[in-house]
Amino acid sequence: MHGANMFEKKLALAAEAVERHLSDLLANDRPGSVEAGRLGDAMRYGALGGGKRMRPFLVMETAGLFGVRQSLTLNAAAAVECVHCYSLIHDDLPAMDDDELRRGRPTVHMAFDEATAILAGDALLTFAFEILARPETHADPATRSELVLGLARASGWEGMAGGQQLDLEAEDAVQIIEDVERIQALKTGALIRFAAEAGAILGRASTEERRAVVNFAEKLGLAFQIADDLLDATGDTAIVGKATGKDAAAGKASFISLLGVPAARQRLARLEAEAISALAAFGTRASVLQEAARFVSRRRS
Amino acid sequence: MHGANMFEKKLALAAEAVERHLSDLLANDRPGSVEAGRLGDAMRYGALGGGKRMRPFLVMETAGLFGVRQSLTLNAAAAVECVHCYSLIHDDLPAMDDDELRRGRPTVHMAFDEATAILAGDALLTFAFEILARPETHADPATRSELVLGLARASGWEGMAGGQQLDLEAEDAVQIIEDVERIQALKTGALIRFAAEAGAILGRASTEERRAVVNFAEKLGLAFQIADDLLDATGDTAIVGKATGKDAAAGKASFISLLGVPAARQRLARLEAEAISALAAFGTRASVLQEAARFVSRRRS
Repeated sequence: MHGANMFEKKLALAAEAVERHLSDLLANDRPGSVEAGRLGDAMRYGALGGGKRMRPFLVMETAGLFGVRQSLTLNAAAAVECVHCYSLIHDDLPAMDDDELRRGRPTVHMAFDEATAILAGDALLTFAFEILARPETHADPATRSELVLGLARASGWEGMAGGQQLDLEAEDAVQIIEDVERIQALKTGALIRFAAEAGAILGRASTEERRAVVNFAEKLGLAFQIADDLLDATGDTAIVGKATGKDAAAGKASFISLLGVPAARQRLARLEAEAISALAAFGTRASVLQEAARFVSRRRS
Repeated sequence: MHGANMFEKKLALAAEAVERHLSDLLANDRPGSVEAGRLGDAMRYGALGGGKRMRPFLVMETAGLFGVRQSLTLNAAAAVECVHCYSLIHDDLPAMDDDELRRGRPTVHMAFDEATAILAGDALLTFAFEILARPETHADPATRSELVLGLARASGWEGMAGGQQLDLEAEDAVQIIEDVERIQALKTGALIRFAAEAGAILGRASTEERRAVVNFAEKLGLAFQIADDLLDATGDTAIVGKATGKDAAAGKASFISLLGVPAARQRLARLEAEAISALAAFGTRASVLQEAARFVSRRRS
């Protein structure tokens, strides 16, 4: 198999495995379960049935670098995805980015209502920590505790939530490229970075190995955001599956408005190369992750 | 000292200790801290400067039954309070209960804005799990992991968030007393129950001791809610510190609308007695907690 094909197949298989696992975790037919109701429906609507599942893929693949079987990574992968899905639900709310379309479907507050969307986000965030703390996630409680700590730091006021706040405030402010990078590092970078780090934690990586994986993920996360901005500036709603051109319409600074399309594409190519070389020490074991870096920077949707 | 005086002094001292600890945890002058900004301000506004701190008090006092020093309970106590404060911020939002006043001050979305309030709630919830997973919370990672699991279960779709959803839906439905009790057990009961259980976890209580503490907390939580409904029905906004009469105005079933004031007061007295006797086996060590049951069912604000 060629690299790109192999990668796309791996990504699709990982996405299927995560979808199945999330669906089991969020099942509404458990005995004694109290929330076969509207909240559970909204959580499932927001968490199932879509997305590339890039973050779970990173958890699984980086753990795979250290020989961890996929079945032993699924809980951590699902937890990271729950946090990602909660953040999408809340970011889409009228008081935030006010989006009506996500992955080609009505957003959670459109399909349900605003109160239910707020609670579904809250409950998915909470559920992520429940999953990580369950004994079946890892036999060693120190590892579970480390995963909880890392996910909380990546998601909270010094991570994703802090980045979303800065992003909302940025709509009214003149910005330089360093601001845009700092916001990205928090808003989307921190969780992507933790996804890779979680694999290293599960795999009991050495300090040096962990640093390499984190370095890879930081480049990948930045590449992901620049690619996203390029799609927003140049993509088509029907292909991308969500509204495009929103940044420019909001007068919001982005990698594109500050660098222009050609320089942004150059930056993306450099990040792709740096991400790939960050994993050089792992040899061919890292080839799928290296393909991921190529995929992210070249994606069209 | 008489019982009631001793209890009120203990509660005030515990509240001060928690306030100081939360203030340290949420300090905005840490080196390298990125959120000395608006999000941190909103989190501090929502978490500091008010409240009886009943849940942290329960963590500390139940841990005290098993000889755990207060300084070793403060992180767990602060984590439970962060979850409580996040729930107040989100419950007050326009899409939820739409309250403008809380503890005699403007609610977070009134003092800041709606987006910031949503994010401040999200970040306080996330921070609760960060605190619990920190090594300084307990030397044994299995204990930290157990605390995370318990707090997540008490707060999520099968606990507090699930109860808030049912409560919102209940506004449009005819209800019987069993529905109101079930909603209470989730919406406010689950976190109060976990607060007491956290003390038992920190204190390495036996199964029997833990059952007694949980039984106490379940009676206390129900008493707390009935007392709250009584205050809503009969209290004064200036004394209670938040809007009163809202349940009746919303046509919402409550312990009062379904039982009437006299029967609700009888029920409260019975719960008080049951809570007190649940701790009988602990002898005089439990006298402060037993005073708490008296205080909760007799409070006027």
